[in-house]
Amino acid sequence: MSISKRFHVAVVGATGAVGLELIRVLQHRNFPVSQLTLLASPRSSGKVLRFHKEEVIVRALEASSFTRVDFAWFCADNKISKRYVPIAAEEGAVVIDNSSAFRMDPTVPLVIPEINGEEAQHHKGIIASPNCTTTITLIGLYPLHQAFDVKRIFASSYQAVSGSGTQGISELNQQVHALLACHQNVERKIYPHQIAFNVLPHVENFLDSGYTQEEVKMQNEGRRILHLPKFRASVTCVRVPVYRAHSIAVFAEFEKPVSLEMAVEALRRAPGLRLVDDVAGNYYPTPLGVEGKEECEIGRLRLDSAMENGLAYWICGDQLLKGAALNAVQIAELLIQS
Amino acid sequence: MSISKRFHVAVVGATGAVGLELIRVLQHRNFPVSQLTLLASPRSSGKVLRFHKEEVIVRALEASSFTRVDFAWFCADNKISKRYVPIAAEEGAVVIDNSSAFRMDPTVPLVIPEINGEEAQHHKGIIASPNCTTTITLIGLYPLHQAFDVKRIFASSYQAVSGSGTQGISELNQQVHALLACHQNVERKIYPHQIAFNVLPHVENFLDSGYTQEEVKMQNEGRRILHLPKFRASVTCVRVPVYRAHSIAVFAEFEKPVSLEMAVEALRRAPGLRLVDDVAGNYYPTPLGVEGKEECEIGRLRLDSAMENGLAYWICGDQLLKGAALNAVQIAELLIQS
Repeated sequence: MSISKRFHVAVVGATGAVGLELIRVLQHRNFPVSQLTLLASPRSSGKVLRFHKEEVIVRALEASSFTRVDFAWFCADNKISKRYVPIAAEEGAVVIDNSSAFRMDPTVPLVIPEINGEEAQHHKGIIASPNCTTTITLIGLYPLHQAFDVKRIFASSYQAVSGSGTQGISELNQQVHALLACHQNVERKIYPHQIAFNVLPHVENFLDSGYTQEEVKMQNEGRRILHLPKFRASVTCVRVPVYRAHSIAVFAEFEKPVSLEMAVEALRRAPGLRLVDDVAGNYYPTPLGVEGKEECEIGRLRLDSAMENGLAYWICGDQLLKGAALNAVQIAELLIQS
Repeated sequence: MSISKRFHVAVVGATGAVGLELIRVLQHRNFPVSQLTLLASPRSSGKVLRFHKEEVIVRALEASSFTRVDFAWFCADNKISKRYVPIAAEEGAVVIDNSSAFRMDPTVPLVIPEINGEEAQHHKGIIASPNCTTTITLIGLYPLHQAFDVKRIFASSYQAVSGSGTQGISELNQQVHALLACHQNVERKIYPHQIAFNVLPHVENFLDSGYTQEEVKMQNEGRRILHLPKFRASVTCVRVPVYRAHSIAVFAEFEKPVSLEMAVEALRRAPGLRLVDDVAGNYYPTPLGVEGKEECEIGRLRLDSAMENGLAYWICGDQLLKGAALNAVQIAELLIQS
């Protein structure tokens, strides 16, 4: 493809938290768009969104929505992806799916451009973008894995309410306002318990193993992305009253002996990552500090005190950007650059 | 000692977050008090606090404050404890110290009554109450250790602002009010970064190892309390915008093979602990749920997916109560019952 070629692109779930962010990313990164089709539920159709200097009307998603579309990003739930992704691919669009519907399908590449970007080239019409918490964790883990060969990790997350979409944001906002106005009862719609001034060890549904769907993605998706079928991950995912950006505390065990110097060197060179680690000056990543940033930030790097070949680290990333919209746009960029 | 004996007791740091809680615990548990001496900095002297139906005037802490005191609880900082604890013990008081000043002193018992209560009897005038995050974690770990012999843990904490005292509470409160009133800048005094709608991987000072003082307490104090010199703990301590009660996500490895059934049985029988673990009904511990409760709550128990003999759990505890004031009062109760 010539670099000057422009594309007809579609965004499904355009009015959601990730969809809106994806439109901003397309604009900000000057993705070569000739036509932008914005799709959403019938309830949102008719809404008008701005892209560069144009106003674009959101239309209701239909089976016929993908005619002559080059790239289609899906930023809706699994059910929508399961139904419409195959239709869009059939129509000839390259689909980049943010849902988990196709992530474990061996015919669908699961891609983080900084890690396994070359796999995007082998798609058969569908490419999956990984889970947000997994992506942010692996952006920090991969450079260390290249240096020392990762064996397993123990991770606990601190996940923002925007991970539950715009409704998660509203729920925290309404609860904080209600509590400050001294209302005794706060409304709960998205979360089973109050999220304001609280934390909930509950992200997505529980499985029979006692882990949640969110927690097992780290191992399942990590194995595919790292090409490491024996990679093990034990994770506790926790929702925290932060609006935007996820944080993860990671304890990682490696096959080879580790050194802090080599680890720092590996992290400094790593794409998509910024080392923020000067604890003497109180410099370490925070979710507020990475809001709106394309790069993830890693810090609190130290030799693990409970493992021989272990490193502990803390990583923060804007999960609407690198954890979703940005990663999905970067995948398409890999294809148009090739 | 006869059960009807009453004691002259003193509380140092009486106007702080832990001190105020300790006075409430003494009242609530009907500790046999004949005289209550409340001590604080000269700045707080003259304040009046209520105990049962009496009003008690807070006095400035002095070397002479401990004459004829039977029990003295120290709820101030390390500097105050280092200076005045030996004086109080010299005067004949049994001192129960909430600071970290004497916790690693081999002549000072470090006691969680549910775990190693018998050690309190062997004091030489000073007994230390452990770190709050360590206490809450161990209340859940100890019954599992009894069943399976703990080897090491990986833990990440979610610590409330009241762990920084009343100033931590004010700082979160002021920041939330300022942000809701759309002030651009929030005031920072206690924490180096905004804590409202943010999380900070920073509790206490950083050590050369890259861990914080708070993080290494788990291993150091855990070894003493569990009588397990090879116990290893790797911890990331994180401050979260929760007013009260700490939470800890723990991955624990044991020497013996584990079973969920035996683990549940051990936790059900354990003192100071409530098993809240019915994820199908969204029952799991939250910090808001344990506010003001004497028992810690444990849940999200599962076989660890990354270790052979591993269990993962989530535990919440009111760190002003079991993590500090309650534990310190329980230690004195052990002595007066004997």
